[in-house]
Amino acid sequence: MHAYRTHTCAELTKQNVGDTVRLSGWVHRIRDHGGILFIDLRDHYGVTQVLCDPDSPAFAEVEKVRSEWCIRIDGTVKARDESLVNPKLPTGEIEVFVREIEVLGQSAELPLMVFGDQEYPEETRLRYRYLDLRREAMQKNMTLRSDVVSSMRKRMWDLNFREYQTPIITASSPEGARDFLVPSRLHPGKFYALPQAPQQFKQLIMMSGYDKYFQIAPCFRDEDPRADRSPTDFYQLDLEMSFVEQQDVFDTISPVIAGVFEEFGEGAKVDDPASWPQIPYKEAALKYGTDKPDLRNPIEMQDVSEHFRGSGFAIFAKLLEQEGTEIRAIPAPTGGSRKFCDRMNAFAQKEGLPGMGYIFWRDQGEGLEAAGPLAKNIGPERTEAIREQLGLGVGDAAFFLGGKPASFQRVAGKARDVIGEELGLTDKNRFAFAWIVDFPIYEKDEETGKIDFEHNPFSMPQGGMAALEGDPLAVKGFQYDLACNGYELVSGAIRNHKPELMLKAFEIAGYGEDEVKKRFQGLYNAFQYGAPPHGGCAAGIDRIVMLLAGTSNIREVIMFPMNQRAEDLMMAAPSDATSDQLMELSLRVIPQE
Amino acid sequence: MHAYRTHTCAELTKQNVGDTVRLSGWVHRIRDHGGILFIDLRDHYGVTQVLCDPDSPAFAEVEKVRSEWCIRIDGTVKARDESLVNPKLPTGEIEVFVREIEVLGQSAELPLMVFGDQEYPEETRLRYRYLDLRREAMQKNMTLRSDVVSSMRKRMWDLNFREYQTPIITASSPEGARDFLVPSRLHPGKFYALPQAPQQFKQLIMMSGYDKYFQIAPCFRDEDPRADRSPTDFYQLDLEMSFVEQQDVFDTISPVIAGVFEEFGEGAKVDDPASWPQIPYKEAALKYGTDKPDLRNPIEMQDVSEHFRGSGFAIFAKLLEQEGTEIRAIPAPTGGSRKFCDRMNAFAQKEGLPGMGYIFWRDQGEGLEAAGPLAKNIGPERTEAIREQLGLGVGDAAFFLGGKPASFQRVAGKARDVIGEELGLTDKNRFAFAWIVDFPIYEKDEETGKIDFEHNPFSMPQGGMAALEGDPLAVKGFQYDLACNGYELVSGAIRNHKPELMLKAFEIAGYGEDEVKKRFQGLYNAFQYGAPPHGGCAAGIDRIVMLLAGTSNIREVIMFPMNQRAEDLMMAAPSDATSDQLMELSLRVIPQE
Repeated sequence: MHAYRTHTCAELTKQNVGDTVRLSGWVHRIRDHGGILFIDLRDHYGVTQVLCDPDSPAFAEVEKVRSEWCIRIDGTVKARDESLVNPKLPTGEIEVFVREIEVLGQSAELPLMVFGDQEYPEETRLRYRYLDLRREAMQKNMTLRSDVVSSMRKRMWDLNFREYQTPIITASSPEGARDFLVPSRLHPGKFYALPQAPQQFKQLIMMSGYDKYFQIAPCFRDEDPRADRSPTDFYQLDLEMSFVEQQDVFDTISPVIAGVFEEFGEGAKVDDPASWPQIPYKEAALKYGTDKPDLRNPIEMQDVSEHFRGSGFAIFAKLLEQEGTEIRAIPAPTGGSRKFCDRMNAFAQKEGLPGMGYIFWRDQGEGLEAAGPLAKNIGPERTEAIREQLGLGVGDAAFFLGGKPASFQRVAGKARDVIGEELGLTDKNRFAFAWIVDFPIYEKDEETGKIDFEHNPFSMPQGGMAALEGDPLAVKGFQYDLACNGYELVSGAIRNHKPELMLKAFEIAGYGEDEVKKRFQGLYNAFQYGAPPHGGCAAGIDRIVMLLAGTSNIREVIMFPMNQRAEDLMMAAPSDATSDQLMELSLRVIPQE
Repeated sequence: MHAYRTHTCAELTKQNVGDTVRLSGWVHRIRDHGGILFIDLRDHYGVTQVLCDPDSPAFAEVEKVRSEWCIRIDGTVKARDESLVNPKLPTGEIEVFVREIEVLGQSAELPLMVFGDQEYPEETRLRYRYLDLRREAMQKNMTLRSDVVSSMRKRMWDLNFREYQTPIITASSPEGARDFLVPSRLHPGKFYALPQAPQQFKQLIMMSGYDKYFQIAPCFRDEDPRADRSPTDFYQLDLEMSFVEQQDVFDTISPVIAGVFEEFGEGAKVDDPASWPQIPYKEAALKYGTDKPDLRNPIEMQDVSEHFRGSGFAIFAKLLEQEGTEIRAIPAPTGGSRKFCDRMNAFAQKEGLPGMGYIFWRDQGEGLEAAGPLAKNIGPERTEAIREQLGLGVGDAAFFLGGKPASFQRVAGKARDVIGEELGLTDKNRFAFAWIVDFPIYEKDEETGKIDFEHNPFSMPQGGMAALEGDPLAVKGFQYDLACNGYELVSGAIRNHKPELMLKAFEIAGYGEDEVKKRFQGLYNAFQYGAPPHGGCAAGIDRIVMLLAGTSNIREVIMFPMNQRAEDLMMAAPSDATSDQLMELSLRVIPQE
């Protein structure tokens, strides 16, 4: 007989009645029913009820065990009474009568119960992660994560992609966020950096002629903590292809993502990739107030400036005299009550805006009537024109925000989410995808007036050199994101593989030729030797698993996460270095004031 | 038509004759045959011959292209003349007549030719890695590596293991080698470390009840450079299981390793895992002079001290009067010539020993005769006894080394390799495996007399507490290595999961209770809460791929390796940090004298 088990705790059924078996696992729950001890014995696979009565030679030992002790038992499988069968448990037809017990690992008093649903402060959960991870919800999340990653790999292999590992200890590459640095011992005073993403390496793999690359890649960014991201590292499904255009990348990754959501979405509707819209960045900003719209929500905002220009609603009419301003409407079908409209107005105020004007349409027995102060101010004709433009009717409402889009767009997008949610317009049992395309290459810093890269500096500008020689703020890139349910899941681009275009693109953002050649020397040099057109994308694995697990806390889908202060409480990281270590690295810590 | 290709460069056959096709790739080779230009167009998948004569509208453009330019061509597929068919090429039946060409990426003059077998200094190859990686041998090595890793994953999944990712930015854990440190910005003066291996985390995963874990895990050690290892990071197939004994781990990993060698070994014989010997560490040292023996070589060394004790060969006889000495024989079947014996003696001298005594057996017409000075000194009876013990005969030889094993064992092992090789005894077309078991837990520092861990401090001692209370140097661990062809491929152990045993084991090596609780706090604390028995191992992926690729240089099987000075010449790492970066990290670099 095996030293620890003949079966897992999920295996025994009526077929095994009469067998002598050996099980190992943890004491999930222990109950005393009239002198007979019932233990739910738990392992990774399931739970089996074992019991021990005073006649058993093991009784005295079994009496000692407590929750979460790790034990091995030998016993006989018996059928449960018909009335005691538990159909929810695969092992619910049987129980095991204990004849022998061995304590494999005792447990001290538990700072966190594994059994049950009690909630604990996150600090406790992270400090005793090995107990937290034994809980049913975490076992489910971790196996989900593992299975999602495996599924991604299989899908990529099926598409004839190979996984190649790129360096983790490498050069600093200023791509936006802060690098984590790693001091070099052999080269005193010099530093390696952990990669923010394998961006340059995957492009170098294309230069090297490998055609199709992917990697489940760890990425490292020294970022200030936020609930929905890890303060140290995160994982991407990173891919790159040679000899492709934007649509080729979409055709490759879309079925992978859709497949994963179908496989693990527990029956939620997954839009067919063929129907995923491609929405230009500008249009997404207008319709949804964000470049990661939640398309489960059917609401689309519209520009209604014309109806307010020179109207009796002075605030908007004045506003529209300034350049770059507009009035935007958020239609709210079925939202036509004063109570709802006031609540939304209050929401906008809480978000820092002066409020949202609104109109709602009702029929109090005298036909269609537009209500609300706005309607009065602009009069029935304009009000009716707005209603027609928005396609609304009795029982519906519309909200209005005005100014420069940058000043209200974020709140408008949020309001759209809240309205969709509150009115039940948002289909919660669906994953709705859209490609956001035509991102601008550059943006202007409002304060300094300086032009900088809006997104990723390595993207191919649409229109090539001619476009770069025109207005930089008008240049769009072959650059795209995949949005799903309000999250950005994938981001990518067709790359700029032409050295002269690369220099020009960086020049516009204020980087001199020498600086580009130095900062991005690997890539720039490689472009000199027959660079193929290439492009790709990266999908955020933590975020995908979060969506599938139905959580908005990234630490629920990472085995051993840092806390929000970038500390590992269980392992005590970060910690002091020894003076020997610092000496070897030629470093001195500057004392804090 | 697709913007870049209708087919890869490995696809076109006679079936396509007459088709208009589009291909993209690199100019592998260009030849001018009587005014007609022949280009071998290469991509990741293969090569297609394309040609252009002066009648083609593309001729002027085609004339301009040079080696390694990346081009796209349109043309018509034609069958080659019967006499010009190249059966070695999948596309050898056809060629493509170019009608149109687009240069996708020009190439500057090449510092390294992709076509052909010219050798280049490693520094050149690493600096222009993207060109080096285009070469056929490197394409083969990189796809081999990728395919080996995929195969490992599939095999582990088939065994119901799940892959879980462990942290890369974590706590310093003094496990032997030096850690790479990562300064924390949010916690000035404190440091994270990159994991030398996921050892503690995989054990914590077992504490967390996950039963079966594996990971293709990056490991980081700040080690001094050596040809066969990476100076920064390397990859392991890391696995851990709960409720297992040593044999369970063997039964799990052996078929995975054997399967990979069968799949990628190009027909070399792979020993059946059922026949892999389990050789105690002590026996391996005696028979092979190493704990990673090459078992393709049938030679087994033997202790022959008794035949020299008090014999006429004064050097050995004297030696044996000292404690802890012995005389060891290396039998050399078919090595029975003075010339061979002298060469081996010279080899031992080159390795720093005074030499190797030898006897060889010949028949010069008067029956069996033992030759060599040693035989004369000890006389015919002892000589004959040695021959009988070693099972040798006419035409064979034996070599002798004496002293404390530590003084000669390494050279003895090497001599065994050389003898097996030179005499053709070593089967080069075979992968021969053996588990080395029963490693000692402790070793004694010869100089200081201090007892320290021999291997891994987390292993379960055989015999438990009782054994730890006896002679520490006699304690064996449930600790094992898998040797293959002279390399250590896998290393592992059943872990010590009992907190009191852990404290005792560390106490023997001089670690106080407080120190253990501080240094290994994650693991030590976890052991308090129902720790399951568990064990596992890790297989060196770089080394496995090296063996399969037939190279002894690790940089041949890594896409973007560091050089031996731990520098990345292509990306310029390590490099200076900016003063802003250092300031943010509260660090100052100590100027070098």
